[in-house]
Amino acid sequence: MSPFDDLMAFARETAALQQVAGRLSWDQETVMPRGAAAQRAEEMAAMEAVLHARATDPRVADWLAAIDPAALDAAGRAQLRLIRRRHERMKRVPARLAAEIARVTSLGQGIWAEAREADDPGAFLPTLAEILRLKREEAAALAATGGELYDALLDDYEPGATGAGLAAMFAALRPRLVALRAAILGSGRNVPVLAARFPAEAQLRLARELATAFGYDWQTGRLDLAVHPFSSGSGTDCRITTRVCETDPFSCIYSTIHEVGHAAYEQGVDRAFLLTPLGAGVSMGVHESQSRIAENQLGRSAAFTGWLFGRLREVFGDFGLADAGTFYAVVNRVTPGYIRTEADEVHYNLHILMRFDLERALIAGDLGTGDLEAAWNDRFLADFGVAVDRPRHGFLQDVHWSVGLFGYFPTYTLGNVYAGCLHAALRADLPDLDDQLARGDARPAMAWLRERVQRHGGLYQPAETIARATGSAPGPGPLLDYLEAKFGALYGL
Amino acid sequence: MSPFDDLMAFARETAALQQVAGRLSWDQETVMPRGAAAQRAEEMAAMEAVLHARATDPRVADWLAAIDPAALDAAGRAQLRLIRRRHERMKRVPARLAAEIARVTSLGQGIWAEAREADDPGAFLPTLAEILRLKREEAAALAATGGELYDALLDDYEPGATGAGLAAMFAALRPRLVALRAAILGSGRNVPVLAARFPAEAQLRLARELATAFGYDWQTGRLDLAVHPFSSGSGTDCRITTRVCETDPFSCIYSTIHEVGHAAYEQGVDRAFLLTPLGAGVSMGVHESQSRIAENQLGRSAAFTGWLFGRLREVFGDFGLADAGTFYAVVNRVTPGYIRTEADEVHYNLHILMRFDLERALIAGDLGTGDLEAAWNDRFLADFGVAVDRPRHGFLQDVHWSVGLFGYFPTYTLGNVYAGCLHAALRADLPDLDDQLARGDARPAMAWLRERVQRHGGLYQPAETIARATGSAPGPGPLLDYLEAKFGALYGL
Repeated sequence: MSPFDDLMAFARETAALQQVAGRLSWDQETVMPRGAAAQRAEEMAAMEAVLHARATDPRVADWLAAIDPAALDAAGRAQLRLIRRRHERMKRVPARLAAEIARVTSLGQGIWAEAREADDPGAFLPTLAEILRLKREEAAALAATGGELYDALLDDYEPGATGAGLAAMFAALRPRLVALRAAILGSGRNVPVLAARFPAEAQLRLARELATAFGYDWQTGRLDLAVHPFSSGSGTDCRITTRVCETDPFSCIYSTIHEVGHAAYEQGVDRAFLLTPLGAGVSMGVHESQSRIAENQLGRSAAFTGWLFGRLREVFGDFGLADAGTFYAVVNRVTPGYIRTEADEVHYNLHILMRFDLERALIAGDLGTGDLEAAWNDRFLADFGVAVDRPRHGFLQDVHWSVGLFGYFPTYTLGNVYAGCLHAALRADLPDLDDQLARGDARPAMAWLRERVQRHGGLYQPAETIARATGSAPGPGPLLDYLEAKFGALYGL
Repeated sequence: MSPFDDLMAFARETAALQQVAGRLSWDQETVMPRGAAAQRAEEMAAMEAVLHARATDPRVADWLAAIDPAALDAAGRAQLRLIRRRHERMKRVPARLAAEIARVTSLGQGIWAEAREADDPGAFLPTLAEILRLKREEAAALAATGGELYDALLDDYEPGATGAGLAAMFAALRPRLVALRAAILGSGRNVPVLAARFPAEAQLRLARELATAFGYDWQTGRLDLAVHPFSSGSGTDCRITTRVCETDPFSCIYSTIHEVGHAAYEQGVDRAFLLTPLGAGVSMGVHESQSRIAENQLGRSAAFTGWLFGRLREVFGDFGLADAGTFYAVVNRVTPGYIRTEADEVHYNLHILMRFDLERALIAGDLGTGDLEAAWNDRFLADFGVAVDRPRHGFLQDVHWSVGLFGYFPTYTLGNVYAGCLHAALRADLPDLDDQLARGDARPAMAWLRERVQRHGGLYQPAETIARATGSAPGPGPLLDYLEAKFGALYGL
């Protein structure tokens, strides 16, 4: 065995253990008995300690030193790059700190869920303060060579991105989004409100049908319920979750399509990369581009909602909307709601820009957890023109901070920007796209994404992955053009 | 930290990782997508390699050498004994072999399930031959200091037991079982056959009710479906599975009660032992005594079936049996069926005695996998008077060999023997037992088992655990007395 073979055998076993940890998280959020939470925290911490020990194993440095990259092909060099990057990052974080973060964030999720249910910030804030303290300690260890603390965390989700770079991109997005929002809300257009009941069981059957329509592979997946929908796993075990609200079928429908977009990315990676560092989506931003283009540019298009309207009438009977055009307007209603995951395409990024600024201030030490709720509520009132009425509609709504995901939120908007770029290229390549969507078939579009983006896994850097798929460097222009055209037409602007 | 503290911290993390591996097995048998089987095999092998590396870690030997057992309390000395035992056993098995066994047996289960479904021995035999080869290699490594190969495997499930010792016990059981069976089948008594349909959903609801009646703690458990029911996990995450057959409600009912017996043992261990070597059932034989006494001596008693008859009539309506006495006879019908897990109490141990002899011959090298089916069918015809009609009713019926569990089967009969001893002591201690069971409440009996057996976990040796609970050394007498009295009355002998 060459040093490269040894390194890859070790990396393959590590990837398998990472999948095990992922299965454990899935279990925790879908099927775990409540009383198991404390024990599970110890189990997660033990897995984290194993993974940390492997990532910092001195043999990895020895193998890396012994390998001549010039003797490898492009995929081999990319494997090497990802292994080196992870090894060097993990070596900076003490094993004690990594295990403590795993333990606290495993418990944090349950504490958050109960506090959210009870609308009780006080039940969550001490835990959040502890998580923030640990994550700042981690960021300081990662950023030992200098730079903004926030960038050190962001790099885990979007390699190469910086807080300053994102802030600049978001500054370019914001004025046109704010102007579009103002024009829509000032248009005087009224969109009807759904007032029917959609039984849960039928919604779940429809969710399975929609997943199939978007090319989800059931042989290597499954669908379950979760409080906060997520997808989980790589390779041949890519699971999705959804939620059901009987008065709002769109919660289930678009959560499902969104998570199918994520899972399709993992299912679409070249199987030659299975259980290797290249065998997963390259970044959270690119990941989100796959879920968002499925959910929004495809799933909320006039063509697809035309088919969906007919299908919903078959399943649920008449639910009070006269025609597909009205249904399209209802699906795409622009309204300043509290909840990010239910936000329309115009408001969504305003939610993210706000979270990005708040969490960047938390990590920088410019904002304390004790002031977070007030800061959230002030900013929400300013940006959305509505006062937050209860904590679960405010800063308790998202799971992310309770599991230590600081630096994750901005990748959502980055994903939307990437989705805008991909959508423009997809439309140019597939002239029959709307005909296919009007038949309820998103598989050709998903196949295009698989060919252009998904199969490469971690082979290219995130921005390069998008540039190779579209033929040009990514930027916010296509997303803004798309939003202005779509909502301009809908609201007669 | 003292060496003992260091060792226990390490053992605690190891126990947490063992629980993770257990969760992964649960996942595989209940919810895993089919297409994930090959990837899962790599994940299981990676976990096995981690656990093997920990069990054989040289620091364990250093800690063991540095600890003075005389300075510890009884629990500390028991922890030490179990850690030393596992360390010394695992050191004898090469990591390569342990990983290969994990990989092959992980795949073996899927291959077995498909072969069983298709009634196709040829689809399973090459895998079985490979598993047998690996297990014999493992046994040879474990038995390096001499002794029967089979004993080395048996010791994993029933520490201290030997093939020769069990053969002697089984030789004492066999004549009275054979005589009882002959008397029953020659009695000319006819027991009616159930001919109604019992909807699956209602059976599953009843299964949950029965689990509660036997004291199952839902806060730390859950119930799912599985091809071959099992229980999984220790401490605060003890899951059970069951199966449903719409024409035979007893399959679901008694699988559930059986698995609740196992899970109650794990839930009943003193929480002070959580995530330590003492924090689980002490052996498979003692484990089976807990499941069997729940299923048979309690669940199939005249008192409990009297309550169950009324409950079934409430749930399913009239299903064609006139009274509780007839129902009791139907529940306890003695008939020479093919399937071990559906066998009555008289035939059950004859199934085990046969498997014990066959697997002991396989491990000894006296029987090859190519001759196994014929050997099985010949022995079944001799013992049960019926010819096996298809492989899934014969040697393909059990999961055990496909996952490498050679040496496991005899612990079932040992568990029945232990259950017989415990039942005699329980009856002596709880004069109101039948009144409680007649109200559908098995919790007082389960509480007695918790107090006498379960809370001790691994504190005492297996046979000592039973002796402490009953006040005398275990033997087959009480089981045989119980069977002869119960079935003598039922069949008018």
